[in-house]
Amino acid sequence: MPVEVNVGLVGLGNIGSGVLDILKENSEIIEKRTGVRINLVAACDKSKEQLEKAITLGIPTTENFKDLLNNEKIGVIIELIGGYEPAHSIIIDALRAKKHVITANKAVLAKYGTEIFAEAQKNNVNVLFEAAVGGCIPIIRTIEESYSSDRIEKIYGILNGTTNFILTRMGEGMSYEEALKKAQELGFAEADPSFDVEGKDTAQKLSILAGLAFDAKIGCEIFTEGITKITKSDIDFAKELGYVIKLLAIAKKENGQIELRVHPTMIPASHFFANISNEFNAVLLSGANTGEILLSGKGAGKLPTATVVVTDIIELGSRVRVTQRNFENVKIMPFEEVTSRFLLRLNVADKPGILAEIAKSLGNNGISIAALSQKETNMETVPIILITHKASEGQLIKAIKEFESIKEIREKASVLRIEDFD
Amino acid sequence: MPVEVNVGLVGLGNIGSGVLDILKENSEIIEKRTGVRINLVAACDKSKEQLEKAITLGIPTTENFKDLLNNEKIGVIIELIGGYEPAHSIIIDALRAKKHVITANKAVLAKYGTEIFAEAQKNNVNVLFEAAVGGCIPIIRTIEESYSSDRIEKIYGILNGTTNFILTRMGEGMSYEEALKKAQELGFAEADPSFDVEGKDTAQKLSILAGLAFDAKIGCEIFTEGITKITKSDIDFAKELGYVIKLLAIAKKENGQIELRVHPTMIPASHFFANISNEFNAVLLSGANTGEILLSGKGAGKLPTATVVVTDIIELGSRVRVTQRNFENVKIMPFEEVTSRFLLRLNVADKPGILAEIAKSLGNNGISIAALSQKETNMETVPIILITHKASEGQLIKAIKEFESIKEIREKASVLRIEDFD
Repeated sequence: MPVEVNVGLVGLGNIGSGVLDILKENSEIIEKRTGVRINLVAACDKSKEQLEKAITLGIPTTENFKDLLNNEKIGVIIELIGGYEPAHSIIIDALRAKKHVITANKAVLAKYGTEIFAEAQKNNVNVLFEAAVGGCIPIIRTIEESYSSDRIEKIYGILNGTTNFILTRMGEGMSYEEALKKAQELGFAEADPSFDVEGKDTAQKLSILAGLAFDAKIGCEIFTEGITKITKSDIDFAKELGYVIKLLAIAKKENGQIELRVHPTMIPASHFFANISNEFNAVLLSGANTGEILLSGKGAGKLPTATVVVTDIIELGSRVRVTQRNFENVKIMPFEEVTSRFLLRLNVADKPGILAEIAKSLGNNGISIAALSQKETNMETVPIILITHKASEGQLIKAIKEFESIKEIREKASVLRIEDFD
Repeated sequence: MPVEVNVGLVGLGNIGSGVLDILKENSEIIEKRTGVRINLVAACDKSKEQLEKAITLGIPTTENFKDLLNNEKIGVIIELIGGYEPAHSIIIDALRAKKHVITANKAVLAKYGTEIFAEAQKNNVNVLFEAAVGGCIPIIRTIEESYSSDRIEKIYGILNGTTNFILTRMGEGMSYEEALKKAQELGFAEADPSFDVEGKDTAQKLSILAGLAFDAKIGCEIFTEGITKITKSDIDFAKELGYVIKLLAIAKKENGQIELRVHPTMIPASHFFANISNEFNAVLLSGANTGEILLSGKGAGKLPTATVVVTDIIELGSRVRVTQRNFENVKIMPFEEVTSRFLLRLNVADKPGILAEIAKSLGNNGISIAALSQKETNMETVPIILITHKASEGQLIKAIKEFESIKEIREKASVLRIEDFD
């Protein structure tokens, strides 16, 4: 006898329509394989046009979400409309009606996660959201299930396909503008790409992953720097030094504090993250007992994401317990205290003593220099490239402030953080 | 109220002892996080010495497995003794006693999987075995859960830490013998490494993964070639051409047939598998709707493996249903029909016409040459390196047979398969 899961689907856009496709194509094999029979009881969208596909498939439809809420047969609401409202209210209302919720909405989870998880537990129902982070990569399941017996200490992620596509293409010779245009042509970047390229999408995803991994309440205040200032020459310099630039999400738990940040990062070309190309996403988890696990796959797309939503439905047919997410308040490390190695690029007048001044400013702030290169040019200014040993963001800010007052330094120092994964 | 899972542990060797460590260290956080309380009711080992650690921890012990079987409180038997017997009998007896089973025993699963899964379903209990393949990589869970709504079409795996360690070190300049010795020193290879280096361990793991992925009954008859014939010069040649050699497990489902094989394989240096180094394992799954997912992590080790066993216990506390594994009989593609690109290395006498003869033999068998290099030497023989377009194993065997009769060919042709992941 199959376990029956009765589903109401809200939002029939790209992913919602993909869910219809997958259920049509794979319901039989799913039941055979898992013993779970998925019944799509009704679909809802405020647009009549979007409802048409469901109607064609013989699925009852409505433009009013309340109809799903009041339908006693429905045990699971799938929210696929995106954005903050009405998605947030729909999720809360569904949970209060004691229906399980599946969502792909990272924005709502990053902002209202604590409220949503508490409401779910109060009503003894589950919230599943594998599709919210990393597309088809089973990252939520891996953190919540595979790592349930271990303590995660570090998370590194390439969590945004748009920026990874742009950086990959820049590594192949395109300018930022060319790469962005290409990404838009291929549907990997939106007309207004700012949410992605400024790193905000990545920061929301990191907030969700870090919350789950560290059992911690994490808000949206994560230090976030996007890729818009990365130039072709940054990428070329990195390459020369044996590095690749990626927009990295980093979360670490150490001494009870959590370090969180999103920024363009130089990583060794030999690290497997360096080969995570184009629209692919990747997550590296480091556990106290398991060591490192790397997961990678397509971070977006209609069918990959819809498949993951359907997997969450199957999961609800297989669970006996409601996931506990009793997240605790944690101390987030102030960003000035975060340490890494830095690469600095400066353009200075070709005059004696300037380099000594820069070195002195760094030394004054306890930063020691690991490598330095000054190339010969025929210009009035010379480019200086400097790699530091580990130092804090606070130390670096002070040092830059000190040497930037020197009039022979012609441009603001360009700073790139280096991650050695140690 | 926590869900209680009452466990009996059989086998207190390396991994079993790790399970004791993890339960001691993490039981509290596991219960808090997952709502599952793990009670280790009793432990069993035939060696009194091995039992000592459990005794110290206040866990009741026995040297007789039947005591666990007859203990009504125990709902889950963990089998960690390895090998075929008595592991196989213990698992079957436990299932017949309607106890769930967790095992890390790939050998038993590869050989007796069909019997074990049938017995489990008959008795309405679960068999979990995440630790049997890929160490701490959540590969079983990913295939059975994340891919439950998709159809897997291809599996590629680096599934054996010993051989991957040896090939990595050979890539860094060591000879096969030096690399093996280093692996033995570091505990990555056994005193008698033949099971690993001949590819048999990899083949057993592939059999398990392919069975799950394709819902298919797969025996142990997989074409298997180990790494013992790989020389330093193979690796150097591959490098020159932009490839890396890995011991790859390959399974593909196409037109109702399943292709299965394990052999040293040239893969592009830019593929992320090329950076899976040393004792790390990796699996690449390709699904009809999800596209590619890559998973990587440590393939062995006491704590990584023990952590995964404990995760399986938690899973048993969370499941409502028994996993269906109604595997079907499938057609395994005859190895002669399997196609790939090949690299051939030949040592021939430096006389006119030889190359033409080789090309003719290949052509006679429908194999076309994609690239060819013949280097100048001061010796009497010249090395010829040939890369073919796609051809079948059968075609290649015939062609080699044809040109090997030429007396000017001084050595058996060395053959390496190339995988382009297309």
